[in-house]
Amino acid sequence: METAETRKTHSQFKHTLPEWVWEFHGHHCPFMPIGWRMGLAALERLGIEREKDHGLFVFSEMGEGHPQTCMMDGLQAATGCTYGKNLLTRLYYGKVAAVVYHPGRGALRLALKPEIQDEMGKFEFFVYRKKGIEPSEIPEAVSNEVINFILSKEDEELFTIKEMPNFQYKPTPGSFNRVKCSSCGEYVFERYARLKDGQVLCIPCSNYEKNLAKKVEL
Amino acid sequence: METAETRKTHSQFKHTLPEWVWEFHGHHCPFMPIGWRMGLAALERLGIEREKDHGLFVFSEMGEGHPQTCMMDGLQAATGCTYGKNLLTRLYYGKVAAVVYHPGRGALRLALKPEIQDEMGKFEFFVYRKKGIEPSEIPEAVSNEVINFILSKEDEELFTIKEMPNFQYKPTPGSFNRVKCSSCGEYVFERYARLKDGQVLCIPCSNYEKNLAKKVEL
Repeated sequence: METAETRKTHSQFKHTLPEWVWEFHGHHCPFMPIGWRMGLAALERLGIEREKDHGLFVFSEMGEGHPQTCMMDGLQAATGCTYGKNLLTRLYYGKVAAVVYHPGRGALRLALKPEIQDEMGKFEFFVYRKKGIEPSEIPEAVSNEVINFILSKEDEELFTIKEMPNFQYKPTPGSFNRVKCSSCGEYVFERYARLKDGQVLCIPCSNYEKNLAKKVEL
Repeated sequence: METAETRKTHSQFKHTLPEWVWEFHGHHCPFMPIGWRMGLAALERLGIEREKDHGLFVFSEMGEGHPQTCMMDGLQAATGCTYGKNLLTRLYYGKVAAVVYHPGRGALRLALKPEIQDEMGKFEFFVYRKKGIEPSEIPEAVSNEVINFILSKEDEELFTIKEMPNFQYKPTPGSFNRVKCSSCGEYVFERYARLKDGQVLCIPCSNYEKNLAKKVEL
């Protein structure tokens, strides 16, 4: 439920991020603040506080392999929908947008406006990034210029915000059940246990699925 | 490169987490600190600092649908391998373990020992959790008991740590290239653009892949 305290927090950190959010992200870039602002804008409109436990969900339309994914760290920080709590899902659409869903309050889709993306692209920060220079190596004044460009805007200037009245989602149920792999002796949660020649095995010992090997050569 | 400052940070926060890490995670539970300790133990042994940019990778063996996934928030916080920076991948093995990989320093696999999992399961915290009580609603003294059980241990008591000399990984290359979807007018990163009847479309407008619809009814 929204409170005076919540509203104060939302407006207090609209234009200046708390220091711990930068600490978490690790460097200064403009995409993390975009996610932060996206998350705050959603909380404010849904009338809710940052999620402490497991009752709010974010579906990021980002993919992988491009720097704008930093947006998701801002979303985690603002909404409390962390990856570790299973509250953040990536949809791999390659768009700077996200859906924020609260089972009681409904869902909103927030998309960064194309004209903001065009304006952002003109900042010197990207001259450095396109040369392959990492964000932590870019002069602070250069990073701050584009970060302030984002943080000085109002929500409506940054985002197209749309209600999604038919949005529904059921999270995967939790379970504490676990078994020991009869080969390596490590615990594995039941959902991921496999059977082979009558033995209970973990996925790596079963050799059934080589998820890791898809991207990694062991 | 490890410095005196790094070693100080590692040892300073081995048994007491910085406040911002709790703030990020949102509640007090024992699994987040397990990931925190796992991450710190890896940094210390690889002789590296928390990652500011994009040069360190974590592969969590966790899956979804069970509370132990909170481990990944501790890993993000300790290593700087955040989900937003594309440095954290989930392998869906259902195991309380992770591989931490630095291209120059090599890879380590850290697994929480089965006996620690057995001992942990006896704490009152799980009586509450199994009743469906959310971590933020559990009395602080009850949560602190199991958190302190974890944080008071030494690395070797908590984890089996194994070097993985043949581990290799190549991250997906980044790209700033983007195009506008000719239907909705939103930007989409090239990798995710689709063609339909000669038009460039984003994935939702193309109707080719209904990722979202797999879990969500729009």
